[in-house]
Amino acid sequence: MKKNKKFYRDNLKELKPYDPHEVPYKIKLNANENPYGLPEEIIEEILSEAKNLKYFRYPSANSVKLSEIVSSFCGLNRDNIVIGNGSDELIDYLIKAFSEKGRRIITTAPSFAMYKIYSIISGSNFAQIPLNQSNFSLNEDKVLEEAKKEDSSIIFIAYPNAPTGNYFAEDKIIKIIEESGCLVVVDEAYYEFGKKTFVPFISRYDNLVIIRTFSKAYSIASLRVGYLLSNPEIINEIRKVKSPFNVNTFSQLVAQVVFENKEILKDSIKKIIEEREKLTNRINEIPPFKAHPSRTNFVLVEVGSKENSDLVYNNLLEQGILVQTASDPIFSTSRYFLRITVGNEEENDILVKGLEIVSKNRSLK
Amino acid sequence: MKKNKKFYRDNLKELKPYDPHEVPYKIKLNANENPYGLPEEIIEEILSEAKNLKYFRYPSANSVKLSEIVSSFCGLNRDNIVIGNGSDELIDYLIKAFSEKGRRIITTAPSFAMYKIYSIISGSNFAQIPLNQSNFSLNEDKVLEEAKKEDSSIIFIAYPNAPTGNYFAEDKIIKIIEESGCLVVVDEAYYEFGKKTFVPFISRYDNLVIIRTFSKAYSIASLRVGYLLSNPEIINEIRKVKSPFNVNTFSQLVAQVVFENKEILKDSIKKIIEEREKLTNRINEIPPFKAHPSRTNFVLVEVGSKENSDLVYNNLLEQGILVQTASDPIFSTSRYFLRITVGNEEENDILVKGLEIVSKNRSLK
Repeated sequence: MKKNKKFYRDNLKELKPYDPHEVPYKIKLNANENPYGLPEEIIEEILSEAKNLKYFRYPSANSVKLSEIVSSFCGLNRDNIVIGNGSDELIDYLIKAFSEKGRRIITTAPSFAMYKIYSIISGSNFAQIPLNQSNFSLNEDKVLEEAKKEDSSIIFIAYPNAPTGNYFAEDKIIKIIEESGCLVVVDEAYYEFGKKTFVPFISRYDNLVIIRTFSKAYSIASLRVGYLLSNPEIINEIRKVKSPFNVNTFSQLVAQVVFENKEILKDSIKKIIEEREKLTNRINEIPPFKAHPSRTNFVLVEVGSKENSDLVYNNLLEQGILVQTASDPIFSTSRYFLRITVGNEEENDILVKGLEIVSKNRSLK
Repeated sequence: MKKNKKFYRDNLKELKPYDPHEVPYKIKLNANENPYGLPEEIIEEILSEAKNLKYFRYPSANSVKLSEIVSSFCGLNRDNIVIGNGSDELIDYLIKAFSEKGRRIITTAPSFAMYKIYSIISGSNFAQIPLNQSNFSLNEDKVLEEAKKEDSSIIFIAYPNAPTGNYFAEDKIIKIIEESGCLVVVDEAYYEFGKKTFVPFISRYDNLVIIRTFSKAYSIASLRVGYLLSNPEIINEIRKVKSPFNVNTFSQLVAQVVFENKEILKDSIKKIIEEREKLTNRINEIPPFKAHPSRTNFVLVEVGSKENSDLVYNNLLEQGILVQTASDPIFSTSRYFLRITVGNEEENDILVKGLEIVSKNRSLK
């Protein structure tokens, strides 16, 4: 069969289907999951409540109970929240509601990959403003210059940034919110590991959106739950493009139980932060690697050249350790990175030993 | 706050957020769910397996096990299938992959409402070709006339059609597949109640897609699972626009268990079909209502005027019975319909009594 049909879209040519990493591996440090999982008693409570769900009915369209619990905890209400299938779906909704073919979406380089993918799918133009080379700080003036183009509509800012792991200065982001004329989306996917937030600014600005996820600290990546906070006018536009029954009943239930019991997560978050600091220090003792400071549950490891990056990635995978490539040619064509999730103690030990083995490889420069 | 910001989209003005029907009701006959649900032993089996899921991990990106089971049952393989969060998400993917602002999407009038909503969101033009007034049959020549416009990309055909409940003639649809030059999507959401299918044609045509759902006969609407079948080239394009981890792990598990045990559904499907025939006959004995023959799990009830439609809908709701409005001004501005799900015996009895009460209302014409 040949693509001689008029219905194919030229602008999808640069996209590839997601690679589901069906390679064999023993240790998974590529997706920033919380390795400690949920306590068994919570899972038992959930599965006991799950006996009574009406599986044959459509879900609560606006995830009503979950929306109430989460928004009220944030000092907001049901008119300020949309629940989605992870942050991914919420990014898609934002782009559907506020961009289209001919508009422009802006983020930093590097940044979270899904902003670009959903932008391309929507037909939007996509611009990335490189971070400062020395310290990964935000070039707010260049972002504003781009934002002031007539077709610019949305600015995505990951806070802390992925994959660099650092917070941008709050006053720079405020300046962008105040002066850009665009919708500014602050992506707080890793909020629970660093605790800085723009939520208090929602009532002050009519162009600010916050997104967060249950996939990282909350350790239910399997169930695809994220939430979006903003003012009621923005929320109304997002609900127009929201699939009526987007979040399934079981995920609504689990997210609700976990959120209501969020003190159970404190220990694992504390352990991840301690492990992150230990891991950063240990990696920095292994030449030629440089682990950058992180406020998330992953560490950005600078590995030198493109050849080094391929060699380290593949050599770790041969040892059964799956990590994530994280270089961005728009940020730099001479600096290469891997993004490595902070695992549990045992996983981090194996990773460090793995990096030590790679470090001795003669081809590494 | 006022919408004086440049990032709002004018073409969303005609959309409204989905109304989640938070009115009180006793009997829910608006969403074509399977009222018999899953047997208790299946739910127990599922929840027992659910103890062992790794909730902290992201799901299988391509729902691998479920994809293999479903595709192989259909005589196809993993390269022929995409699993989605219900048919809704698959309709969104199809429009993302094969339409965009400036292209045209075509369906019938009436037809399933989500085709239009996702088309508007994507910025596509949207055209509806009215069915023949006498018997709800397809105007294939008018569809082809519209399809041959340069900008036309996708034709959605519900088979059986919703909300009319009838099958269109197979040879008319084949003609559209062969002559339209568009991607033709045959939506078999109600397949299990009528058993006619276009699946055998997938290998013959390079522009044919089938979508089906677990929300109707399979009775797991709560868990949002649907599937899409096509040739590998089309599937590859859809995977480009698919969210990497779209279907959560629990829904993948449940759909798999239910599909592997699908003989448990036979009884409820048989009962629904019997009840549908009884209900159709009983409604036809209540003036002024006319229930059209259906090959689905709902009945299209013609109620006369707009005033009648409002009166019947509201009067049923006052009695605690929620049904669905189903009129389409593009089909007719003088014919009005309600779409009523076939419930269980008790629910259908209450519905018939409810319609008898409304029938005696003096305002009804």
